Amino acid sequence: MQTPTSSQISFQNKLERLRQNRLFEIIVVSVILFSAMVTGVKTYEIPLQVLRLVDWLDYAITLFFVVEISVRFLAEPNKRDFFKSGWNVFDTLIVTVSLIPVNDSELAYVARLIRIFRVLRMVSVIPELRHLLNSLLKALPQLGYVALMMFIIVYIFAAIGTTLFEGINDFLWGDIAVSMLTLFRVMTFEDWTDVMYETMAVYPLSWIYYLMFIFLNTFAFLNMLIGIVVNVMEQERAEEHEEAHKNDMTIEHLSAQLEELKQLIKAKS
Amino acid sequence: MQTPTSSQISFQNKLERLRQNRLFEIIVVSVILFSAMVTGVKTYEIPLQVLRLVDWLDYAITLFFVVEISVRFLAEPNKRDFFKSGWNVFDTLIVTVSLIPVNDSELAYVARLIRIFRVLRMVSVIPELRHLLNSLLKALPQLGYVALMMFIIVYIFAAIGTTLFEGINDFLWGDIAVSMLTLFRVMTFEDWTDVMYETMAVYPLSWIYYLMFIFLNTFAFLNMLIGIVVNVMEQERAEEHEEAHKNDMTIEHLSAQLEELKQLIKAKS
Amino acid sequence: MQTPTSSQISFQNKLERLRQNRLFEIIVVSVILFSAMVTGVKTYEIPLQVLRLVDWLDYAITLFFVVEISVRFLAEPNKRDFFKSGWNVFDTLIVTVSLIPVNDSELAYVARLIRIFRVLRMVSVIPELRHLLNSLLKALPQLGYVALMMFIIVYIFAAIGTTLFEGINDFLWGDIAVSMLTLFRVMTFEDWTDVMYETMAVYPLSWIYYLMFIFLNTFAFLNMLIGIVVNVMEQERAEEHEEAHKNDMTIEHLSAQLEELKQLIKAKS
Amino acid sequence: MQTPTSSQISFQNKLERLRQNRLFEIIVVSVILFSAMVTGVKTYEIPLQVLRLVDWLDYAITLFFVVEISVRFLAEPNKRDFFKSGWNVFDTLIVTVSLIPVNDSELAYVARLIRIFRVLRMVSVIPELRHLLNSLLKALPQLGYVALMMFIIVYIFAAIGTTLFEGINDFLWGDIAVSMLTLFRVMTFEDWTDVMYETMAVYPLSWIYYLMFIFLNTFAFLNMLIGIVVNVMEQERAEEHEEAHKNDMTIEHLSAQLEELKQLIKAKS
Repeated sequence: MQTPTSSQISFQNKLERLRQNRLFEIIVVSVILFSAMVTGVKTYEIPLQVLRLVDWLDYAITLFFVVEISVRFLAEPNKRDFFKSGWNVFDTLIVTVSLIPVNDSELAYVARLIRIFRVLRMVSVIPELRHLLNSLLKALPQLGYVALMMFIIVYIFAAIGTTLFEGINDFLWGDIAVSMLTLFRVMTFEDWTDVMYETMAVYPLSWIYYLMFIFLNTFAFLNMLIGIVVNVMEQERAEEHEEAHKNDMTIEHLSAQLEELKQLIKAKS
Repeated sequence: MQTPTSSQISFQNKLERLRQNRLFEIIVVSVILFSAMVTGVKTYEIPLQVLRLVDWLDYAITLFFVVEISVRFLAEPNKRDFFKSGWNVFDTLIVTVSLIPVNDSELAYVARLIRIFRVLRMVSVIPELRHLLNSLLKALPQLGYVALMMFIIVYIFAAIGTTLFEGINDFLWGDIAVSMLTLFRVMTFEDWTDVMYETMAVYPLSWIYYLMFIFLNTFAFLNMLIGIVVNVMEQERAEEHEEAHKNDMTIEHLSAQLEELKQLIKAKS
Repeated sequence: MQTPTSSQISFQNKLERLRQNRLFEIIVVSVILFSAMVTGVKTYEIPLQVLRLVDWLDYAITLFFVVEISVRFLAEPNKRDFFKSGWNVFDTLIVTVSLIPVNDSELAYVARLIRIFRVLRMVSVIPELRHLLNSLLKALPQLGYVALMMFIIVYIFAAIGTTLFEGINDFLWGDIAVSMLTLFRVMTFEDWTDVMYETMAVYPLSWIYYLMFIFLNTFAFLNMLIGIVVNVMEQERAEEHEEAHKNDMTIEHLSAQLEELKQLIKAKS
Repeated sequence: MQTPTSSQISFQNKLERLRQNRLFEIIVVSVILFSAMVTGVKTYEIPLQVLRLVDWLDYAITLFFVVEISVRFLAEPNKRDFFKSGWNVFDTLIVTVSLIPVNDSELAYVARLIRIFRVLRMVSVIPELRHLLNSLLKALPQLGYVALMMFIIVYIFAAIGTTLFEGINDFLWGDIAVSMLTLFRVMTFEDWTDVMYETMAVYPLSWIYYLMFIFLNTFAFLNMLIGIVVNVMEQERAEEHEEAHKNDMTIEHLSAQLEELKQLIKAKS
């Protein structure tokens, strides 16, 4: 890598200042929102002229994003660090894919879907949303284990349900995959009594099956999900509190003071 | 502003005492409740004579509110401070609007709706409700970011949903706005399986779309709303606890005591 | 009150021991459960002979309860303290009412309902349930204010709803009371989209009304109920923790030790 | 018990190393997952040849489990400790029952259901899931008392409901058991307004009954379940935090230091 000349540095500083400019950020957020609206407009039945305008706007937005990413890339003092941030990689990818010209109707479909994901750039631009997502990612391993536990319970109940209720309603209990979907529905309390009353007509005691499932999966483990999320947020608050008070006096300070006193007394004798 | 004479001061003190009188507060709350009931009665089909009575009661209530606000205004030692409180502004506005005589049937409709908001005066009069609303306002920025995150997810899924399912059910997936409403419905688990079964008849794998959406939006981010509210209340409890213990001995006190000891030892030598 | 003779005291001690006997408690709980079952059996269509048996069992249970309350009353050293406990008053009331012989069919209906409340004696007998109810009572003032807030919001939205939607569906929006019930239903997400789609056919923007209501009442204030309950339980845990650690060393102890040191140094000079 | 020879010890060490091998664990988890899939496949309508293959796979899985349990048993230095762990007993039981050859179609049905529970071996193999289940077991006594409280309330309301509404809908309010199921349904908000509107046609004030029930059971006690689960997780986090900081300086250390100082001063005089 060449040593940058002083003119290069001053240009980079200008870009850096631009990138950190509050107005620049607001403009970027506005363009993202506008881009989302443009994508939304396309789902309505619109006259051809408006559609052409929308397409032109789309090109303009893509161009703006290319410029914005370039500014952020050039403003970075060390170019290699740029792609170390997952969000920069995500932004570049979304913008690059938007650049590919698509005429084929098949691919146009895919390209349109990718354009939707440009809304996700909101998360990469607004720090509070990034913070929120990090909280969720922090809780993910724990959430994952609870989800695995719930999956195991759903699986066991689905296997039992298919064995017992297959003959009653093939649409709900036909095979293990369909049964799992039915149990997920029961877990969300969505018309679960309709499902139950149907099987109770054949097996009058089958309410035991549903109640056991609801108690285990909804009351116990779904509440655990809430518990984990509440805990992660509590933990972050505690960390912020500790951070703010880390310069407060601690027991260790007192201990040092006492040691000093001891030396003073010893020195005197 | 003129210097108030002593007779003015004694009059103001009387009003001040009236305002802080417990009985006065109970009467105000009662009149607000009565006013709400009068508004409620109007929604029933009532004979003309009763309606006339209700209208008379309405005038009486408005008059009472004018007097009450005046008392509170005159009781305020510094008149300028009165409108610094948002609740006072709100109260004055509601009462002033009620005063405007409306004969036009179009405007009468609006005036009637404004009279309903007089119930909100309960919040400005009862301190505990004001406290509750403050807790909510404190949590609002955080709640807002979670809501924004949920909105982004709903938007992306709505765009995908419209693209895929528009042909299946125009009422539910016709355009992006309608799709967002449908997804909000899925988020509240309201007959969401009916929506899903319909699209599964065409795309058998579309359950993945619904489950991903429910896991992300309902299980992850809706739980975050609970987490934030629980945390804000926890935080307030902690602050109250700290307030109550702020005169307790702290490590800083001990440190001061140790310093004193050190000076004592040094002085002796 | 006469001074109790020694034979009276020894008799009282025996009763006291009986009352605190673990087996006695288990028997009481069993009889309460059995009494609940007997009440339950009456709701089935049963042959006359069984009904007669059930009536006999009912008399036996009532008799057992009379004896049990008497034992607890006589075991109390200070008779006046007995009725200071709300649970004792409740128990005595329930048992006394069961004693009244009822032949009139009108009153028999009421007597039967009162017999159901004998199950509540479980709460007065099992300490953990009493503890649970106390937690709830502790949270009641806070819960009450949130409920009042929710009621005010429901009231305002009901008044608006009645004004706007009365012509659309008289069953759901006929008057303010019916509208409040409809909104409570919307709050629990029970078929709320059916209610919404109906009004959207006339006012296409009425989804704003429902979403605002759901965000305010369900997402904000219903979550506050969870927050309050979680907090009260957290608080009790903290109190138990403090109780267990109250003999631990505190900063106050250290301060006393330091003071002692200071006196020691001063005394030496 | 014989003293193990050195060759026995070296063999046991090998097994011990095998058991703790990361790859071995992954293979075991994979086989369990594969076994679950095999059980799932049987619920589909499959050609006879595939079924035969599935049966062969089933035998292979059973054999693998026998070997795995044997390895774990032999790796245990003290054989008696093996069955002290509930999970080992559970694993052995599941595997042993799978071994019993079943030809009778009646028993085959039961054997098939037992095979489903092999998925639960995931919990015994993955430590995080075991940890999760322990958290739940820790909260179980508290959850049990809340459940009992809810049961009592449901029972009382069911008895009242049967008395009042039996004539209106025999399917929902026929006897106390059916009424309890109906109330459980109301508690989960599942089409509860349909139930209510039906009884309101006869008793217009019966909404009071439903609202009281929902406030008590859903808003108060169901939230308590959440409170308990959140608290247990909070408690575990606090314990982990304390464990991590147990070597930190405490007030007790300071007190010891002060005592030392005191001795030093005394010694000098």
